[in-house]
Amino acid sequence: MEGLFTANNVWMMVCTALVFFMHTGFAFLEIGLTRQKNTINILFKNIFIITVGLLLYYLIGFNLMYPGEFNGYLGSIVPGIGAPENGMTPDYADGGYTWWTDFLFQGMFAATAATIVSGAVAERMKIGAFMIFTVIYVGLVYPIAGSWKWGGGFLDELGFYDFAGSTLVHSVGGWAALIAVWLLGSRIGKFKDGKPQAIPGHSIPLATAGVLILWLGWFGFNGGSVLSADPELTSLTLVTTCLAAAAGGVVAALVSFLKYKNLDLTMFLNGILGGLVGITAGADVMTPESAILIGAIAGALIVFAVSFIDAIKLDDPVGAIAVHLICGIWGTLAVGIFSTNPDHTLLAQFIGVACYAGFCIITSFIIIFTLKKTIGIRVSEKEELEGLDTHEHGMDAYPDFRLNEH
Amino acid sequence: MEGLFTANNVWMMVCTALVFFMHTGFAFLEIGLTRQKNTINILFKNIFIITVGLLLYYLIGFNLMYPGEFNGYLGSIVPGIGAPENGMTPDYADGGYTWWTDFLFQGMFAATAATIVSGAVAERMKIGAFMIFTVIYVGLVYPIAGSWKWGGGFLDELGFYDFAGSTLVHSVGGWAALIAVWLLGSRIGKFKDGKPQAIPGHSIPLATAGVLILWLGWFGFNGGSVLSADPELTSLTLVTTCLAAAAGGVVAALVSFLKYKNLDLTMFLNGILGGLVGITAGADVMTPESAILIGAIAGALIVFAVSFIDAIKLDDPVGAIAVHLICGIWGTLAVGIFSTNPDHTLLAQFIGVACYAGFCIITSFIIIFTLKKTIGIRVSEKEELEGLDTHEHGMDAYPDFRLNEH
Amino acid sequence: MEGLFTANNVWMMVCTALVFFMHTGFAFLEIGLTRQKNTINILFKNIFIITVGLLLYYLIGFNLMYPGEFNGYLGSIVPGIGAPENGMTPDYADGGYTWWTDFLFQGMFAATAATIVSGAVAERMKIGAFMIFTVIYVGLVYPIAGSWKWGGGFLDELGFYDFAGSTLVHSVGGWAALIAVWLLGSRIGKFKDGKPQAIPGHSIPLATAGVLILWLGWFGFNGGSVLSADPELTSLTLVTTCLAAAAGGVVAALVSFLKYKNLDLTMFLNGILGGLVGITAGADVMTPESAILIGAIAGALIVFAVSFIDAIKLDDPVGAIAVHLICGIWGTLAVGIFSTNPDHTLLAQFIGVACYAGFCIITSFIIIFTLKKTIGIRVSEKEELEGLDTHEHGMDAYPDFRLNEH
Repeated sequence: MEGLFTANNVWMMVCTALVFFMHTGFAFLEIGLTRQKNTINILFKNIFIITVGLLLYYLIGFNLMYPGEFNGYLGSIVPGIGAPENGMTPDYADGGYTWWTDFLFQGMFAATAATIVSGAVAERMKIGAFMIFTVIYVGLVYPIAGSWKWGGGFLDELGFYDFAGSTLVHSVGGWAALIAVWLLGSRIGKFKDGKPQAIPGHSIPLATAGVLILWLGWFGFNGGSVLSADPELTSLTLVTTCLAAAAGGVVAALVSFLKYKNLDLTMFLNGILGGLVGITAGADVMTPESAILIGAIAGALIVFAVSFIDAIKLDDPVGAIAVHLICGIWGTLAVGIFSTNPDHTLLAQFIGVACYAGFCIITSFIIIFTLKKTIGIRVSEKEELEGLDTHEHGMDAYPDFRLNEH
Repeated sequence: MEGLFTANNVWMMVCTALVFFMHTGFAFLEIGLTRQKNTINILFKNIFIITVGLLLYYLIGFNLMYPGEFNGYLGSIVPGIGAPENGMTPDYADGGYTWWTDFLFQGMFAATAATIVSGAVAERMKIGAFMIFTVIYVGLVYPIAGSWKWGGGFLDELGFYDFAGSTLVHSVGGWAALIAVWLLGSRIGKFKDGKPQAIPGHSIPLATAGVLILWLGWFGFNGGSVLSADPELTSLTLVTTCLAAAAGGVVAALVSFLKYKNLDLTMFLNGILGGLVGITAGADVMTPESAILIGAIAGALIVFAVSFIDAIKLDDPVGAIAVHLICGIWGTLAVGIFSTNPDHTLLAQFIGVACYAGFCIITSFIIIFTLKKTIGIRVSEKEELEGLDTHEHGMDAYPDFRLNEH
Repeated sequence: MEGLFTANNVWMMVCTALVFFMHTGFAFLEIGLTRQKNTINILFKNIFIITVGLLLYYLIGFNLMYPGEFNGYLGSIVPGIGAPENGMTPDYADGGYTWWTDFLFQGMFAATAATIVSGAVAERMKIGAFMIFTVIYVGLVYPIAGSWKWGGGFLDELGFYDFAGSTLVHSVGGWAALIAVWLLGSRIGKFKDGKPQAIPGHSIPLATAGVLILWLGWFGFNGGSVLSADPELTSLTLVTTCLAAAAGGVVAALVSFLKYKNLDLTMFLNGILGGLVGITAGADVMTPESAILIGAIAGALIVFAVSFIDAIKLDDPVGAIAVHLICGIWGTLAVGIFSTNPDHTLLAQFIGVACYAGFCIITSFIIIFTLKKTIGIRVSEKEELEGLDTHEHGMDAYPDFRLNEH
């Protein structure tokens, strides 16, 4: 009994560490796919998100997201990590982990939604506005949205299923990314005579390492969402996660090759991420075959979504909307199609997706539109052209290297 | 009982994640030690290997490598991950881990052999040819070779011992690297008037990080090869692994200093890898003293092997043959000398090495020679000089930086 | 019973791997915050520290630091890892981990002290002198100092408490860094007309990744210092560790913004490290609230300490003294103020800090002053200006990139 509780908690702590490491992955991916002149700015945002996100989750988020008995829509704000009545004994969480582990694992998730937005608005958003947005979105929007399903709220009662957050994390971030990108406008030079121009990222090795680190982190993101170390469920989850990632990457590379006659590494990488986001909603209720199929479809979706987003003149430097929003929706709906659990229905999945869409679109619009009309959300043209690093931070990311201006 | 099974499976999942992370290490090492103009190409190959390798292992490899009852030489191709009769219960694998974990851990190993080749053929091999080679070598050659020992085949019955793959993984990759390098020829500029020229790698920080990540990954590579979390065996294995790595690095640096009067970081790094490869065959049957000795000899071997390979006019940009083939053979034979298990004999080890040598040399020659005579294996001179990144992928790895041509 | 022992040992092995990974974090941080022309030199030192440190710990350190019954001040030198009388059974270490795990976990810690010095003396110290210093400091000074508390020596009997090494690891390194920096003198160009000049680091992405990897490693550094996987203690420790890190970063960024009107990423990063070092002495005996406060104060201290060290004309390129010495002292004293264990007193903490100060200042002065008067500790002006990489190692870290001279 004590051995099992300890083993469960060890696994959950390992998963917590892996999810924390994902922030390194996000940081590498985002700076790798953007220009060197905005590197410090992106890293500052990432470090801000992790640190402030964790403190906010302590102050507000944890109890707001897991309120215990509540009306199903909105918990209340209680700071701190009040230990449960029965303390740290194995009774808590059915012996899966301790209260402290619970807090930390969920806290590591909380910051992720804002990170998704960070990538989409890179290279042109005012850092002050982004920080305010982050505080509100991570501190209030994410935990309230989360409580509806993971906190036992109305969507949970309705039978909606989202194992590890295709919707609760990825599309919550993705919707805000969409709204932010729309309200911000595109980077100078992204569209010329109405045609999208490639603005190449400044370090493909870091972008690649970022994706590999994110994949590694997903071992904890999905594996830890079992909320214990149940051998069958955790290991099945890792298998479906990895197969979907592999299939997503391969299909994205293949479709991209057929479409553009090019062995496009960036598309390969985004395909892997798409597969990971896609499997996340149902990683514990899929056969390996279904996982491969879900990943493969996610990979194909990525290629078309990226060119569609370009076509409607939205500028998403890192492909965050395609990866996190489109594949997040796909993965959530896929549970209704492929789940081995007959209780999961496409209708419930659809309702869930719609509720999160509504809530996130409205809240992120209110926040970002208000910021736009007050302090402003976009840096000056001069600042954008010369780079946010020197203007907002007074530093260069690579002072010893000779650089190309662009 | 349930606690022990869960703890065992947690360890195996952690090890699986660590072995997965080794691919980041390989990627960093390979790009770090080569020129920037071929960076995307190498990263593309690495991402290809991981994703396709895992899918192939699902389709073909797993059941071919672990066929259960078979003739000892060649299993049959059965796609998928058929659960064992007794399901996921602790009965499977003596309570060490679940069927899913088994698949994923072994699948992560499978891709490694091809990665070894990737480094050796860097900067001049056609990517299409490399992809075809990878599919055949990872899909068929590696699992067949593996079945002979780990699948319970004829070498297992003969008493041959290879704990975690000095031979089954590293020299299987190393032999193919040797054949590929020989059939490909050296890079333009590598030999001038018959003398080997240094072609410095473009990012020593990434190469160094790669080696540290590989060392970290070896905690899982060797630690997981215990196939349970048996406290004594796993922790002894980590101790021997780390001591051999340390000794390999120090001795390689020292020998290199005595030979060339230079504090050569690259040799230090390759010495660490040599020590790791060397201890891999017997990490669980060595005293710490033997581990240090095996690592030290591997470190010395690296220095002489690198200059020997240069001397016979083979061009191996990352030292893969010295590290994986030479130290792989050494480590396998060392089991026959130093093992604490009296059943291990030098003769059985020698027979094992010879069988893998024969099989891998023949199969890799057939594959690569056929490719050479049909679609060709070497890029054009223009492409090689200008870099594979722009020609095969239409991308630059570092577009914001000013670069030296060479 | 066996399940619990296995789970405990799994956690300790995971923590060992995480502490090992910290060396990658240190390497990235140190090279990121210094100039590219000294990159190879720093990496060489880091690789030297890990490998030689581990071998020394095997030869001397382990038994010197954990001598069993001894006079409380000085153990004796016994090479090797002699297994305990009762072998590897769960009796050893109260079922927390095996003898092998014990050695490896502690061995990974040992090298850390020297790494702290490596950063402080970067860009101007002779590598030979540094290697000799490392061998003596890691081989003798660190284990002797450690035995006083963790080996059950006189400070342990006195009631001094240092959970994971704010003093035993961080200030032991920090004192030597202080002495070394003082004896070495500042880098050419650091002070102009008595005013400190910024010498910007050459890769802020690597520095940032370094801090994130160090934070990740601290999951093992503090989490493993519980010396078992006790669910309540380990998970509380991770919570306090992460909250202190977050608070340290946020407060350092804030104070730095108020003081300099700049969003300074480097200060943000050093604040995180300060918070981590600060919580390390009492991570298992703090409430989350206290952890946030300790981290916040550490973050503020960093900002003032960095400018104070500049003001007294000491040149510490990476801020090691502020992070590891100042915050190490703070964290150790904070145990006497905030600990939930009433046995911990400010007086005992103060005595502990003073003893380590005395011992480390004296020993490091003797070692470094002797080296200065014999073989010399500082490279020539020409070598310093042109970079240590070409002079000491005959290599460039980034040969494909065009660089700025400075």
